[in-house]
Amino acid sequence: MRIAVLGGDGFVGWPTTLHLSNQGHEVHIIDNLSRRWIDTELGVQSLTPMDSIQERCRIWTQLTGEHIQFHLLDLAREYERLKQWLTEYRPDAIIHFAEQRAAPYSMKTDRHKVYTVDNNVGATHNLLAAMVDSGCDAHLVHLGTMGVYGYSSVGAAIPEGYLDVEITNLEGEKKGLEILYPTKPGSVYHMTKSLDQILFQFYAQNDGLRITDLHQGIVWGTHTDQTRRHEQLINRFDYDGDYGTVLNRFLIQAAIDYPLTVHGTGGQTRAFIHIQDSVRCIELALGDAPQSGDRVRIFNQMTETHRVRDLAELVAGLTGAEVKYLPNPRKEAAENDLIVKNDQFLALGLNPTTLAEGLLEEVVDVARKYAHRIDRSRVAAVSAWTRDIAQRVEHDPEGTRLKSVS
Amino acid sequence: MRIAVLGGDGFVGWPTTLHLSNQGHEVHIIDNLSRRWIDTELGVQSLTPMDSIQERCRIWTQLTGEHIQFHLLDLAREYERLKQWLTEYRPDAIIHFAEQRAAPYSMKTDRHKVYTVDNNVGATHNLLAAMVDSGCDAHLVHLGTMGVYGYSSVGAAIPEGYLDVEITNLEGEKKGLEILYPTKPGSVYHMTKSLDQILFQFYAQNDGLRITDLHQGIVWGTHTDQTRRHEQLINRFDYDGDYGTVLNRFLIQAAIDYPLTVHGTGGQTRAFIHIQDSVRCIELALGDAPQSGDRVRIFNQMTETHRVRDLAELVAGLTGAEVKYLPNPRKEAAENDLIVKNDQFLALGLNPTTLAEGLLEEVVDVARKYAHRIDRSRVAAVSAWTRDIAQRVEHDPEGTRLKSVS
Repeated sequence: MRIAVLGGDGFVGWPTTLHLSNQGHEVHIIDNLSRRWIDTELGVQSLTPMDSIQERCRIWTQLTGEHIQFHLLDLAREYERLKQWLTEYRPDAIIHFAEQRAAPYSMKTDRHKVYTVDNNVGATHNLLAAMVDSGCDAHLVHLGTMGVYGYSSVGAAIPEGYLDVEITNLEGEKKGLEILYPTKPGSVYHMTKSLDQILFQFYAQNDGLRITDLHQGIVWGTHTDQTRRHEQLINRFDYDGDYGTVLNRFLIQAAIDYPLTVHGTGGQTRAFIHIQDSVRCIELALGDAPQSGDRVRIFNQMTETHRVRDLAELVAGLTGAEVKYLPNPRKEAAENDLIVKNDQFLALGLNPTTLAEGLLEEVVDVARKYAHRIDRSRVAAVSAWTRDIAQRVEHDPEGTRLKSVS
Repeated sequence: MRIAVLGGDGFVGWPTTLHLSNQGHEVHIIDNLSRRWIDTELGVQSLTPMDSIQERCRIWTQLTGEHIQFHLLDLAREYERLKQWLTEYRPDAIIHFAEQRAAPYSMKTDRHKVYTVDNNVGATHNLLAAMVDSGCDAHLVHLGTMGVYGYSSVGAAIPEGYLDVEITNLEGEKKGLEILYPTKPGSVYHMTKSLDQILFQFYAQNDGLRITDLHQGIVWGTHTDQTRRHEQLINRFDYDGDYGTVLNRFLIQAAIDYPLTVHGTGGQTRAFIHIQDSVRCIELALGDAPQSGDRVRIFNQMTETHRVRDLAELVAGLTGAEVKYLPNPRKEAAENDLIVKNDQFLALGLNPTTLAEGLLEEVVDVARKYAHRIDRSRVAAVSAWTRDIAQRVEHDPEGTRLKSVS
């Protein structure tokens, strides 16, 4: 297949690109490299030293003989070039990672909120409109997030995208109805993925586009089989308070003797997936494309759930690190349950890599190896969800009044 | 109150501005005048001769002594100026009409789809982000559309925004849940109002913004008590295939001896409201503001429903016009039921102006008076929802093969 990976220079985009190229697909990366610009803006860098995308592609070709073409293109701002590209290359599949993906970054200031909405909605809608207008019938696989769901409030499991409900009609009869799960995003970033769902629903229904939406959990780990093959193919690894994700951050904190930072009570339950499983899921989704006219296919791309404080204790037990409870800069429930269905990927043959399987050590090893590249001052998570929360965190950075912070 | 009317130069925005100024409020219009530019783009004009917004405001002051301030500002493209404006003027209420509002225009070409999404989502999200950042605690009243609902499929009435459902939890117990009505927009335009709903839900929940969303039916009529007061205060009146709305179009077609154009079987049921009731509803919504922390308040702003073919027959009976059935350029069900609740506005004191009450004649009078300004070639609705539909319509403009068109 000819596959376009939009955002193929990113944390999951790059290993996905290598995974698909390794399987013999003709892979094209389309990326505006905004993630590298954001590193520059924030003054942080990947823990792992990351080469330019052009150099990464050159090394891959040298190693394997396979070519990965890189196209510098801004989906949200260069609509006509995007349409031209689709018309010229006519991909069989498009994997869409090309969105700003950090919740704390999306809540940093009003400018970051506006950027996240403009960029993410613009990229996704431009892509859909361009696919229709260029007559591109590629299977579109989009990276969504478990965060579109919010948390189930009545003890029901979170299904894969669609919820069975009963409503009472005018005759007083109860009728079954299947609906898109009522969305409750918890940040501007998550909200953009909720907006994407509505865009996909419309374009699948009106234009018969074939779309799969993958609601992914928090990705942990760094290496995949392909990124391990050469030092210069190494994946990016974010540790800062905006882009670093919770489990990877704990592992890094442990490696540099920094206390494990739990925000609030740590009672938040989150869904997780290892990066090797993430690229495997994309392969599985590609092999199971919907037909034109089908509703959007939605998978939950996660393999296990954990409470944040349990993860902290797990990492503390493994490494001897100290756990520190800090005020929560997010507006969210202190404690929540999260029961998630992921039957579809299991049925397609996913064999989950769980936290128990020793890969935690591997991440600690990576963190130790590159510990000299860490700026300790950038480890704290500081983006606050509201002005009130920002003030509380500022006045009590150590969380000594934590009991009163909901 | 100091009230900002965003899009106050438009079809409902202008009479709303006058209505609120007439009640003694300090009214500011914020508008980028894009609707006038679109007239220029399409080469059509309002049936009624419309003065510049500055001239309209001058006449109003001359007539009443009340001042309406006009601010030329593009919400989607001038974020910083918008924030400055909110900081400087600190309005008590904001009425948000500033979105591209024609479904056929939004489906015209890919460029029109992209414009509609960029403009509408950009305007709404910029407004929300700017309100939060400037600490503006105005009551935001937004004009949504009945089109976010789609049509009820199991014989249930469409509630006002929120639907009571039952779901089965992991213990097998049925639990009640109130959810935002599952959206099924029928065009890119309607889709943007579905996206707005998610934006409002998030900002009400995260930032405590006070928001009312009015899901309006198709507005008919042209005059209100204030626009009648001077020839130069006359409201705009669209008759073209993109911006003209169904009942007003029938009345104009009748006035110029053009057959009444019913698309498809005319079995589509739509919700309607007279423009005088529309401005009254906005007044009522303003007087019933939610508190910070409340969920978004949603009203259905409509007073009656009719099948399109019944309306055509009604106008034909009134005027002697001929009814013509043409292929439908929209992708929609040929026939649908639409039972809608509007209890909240009735409880607040709305006294509906219905079609039976003679105002139909008034619209025919307006149409006859300005019939010399009509370009008959622009009356047909030509924007097709998909390429396939465009081809069917092109090959069978007279609808002779209508029976085979679903």
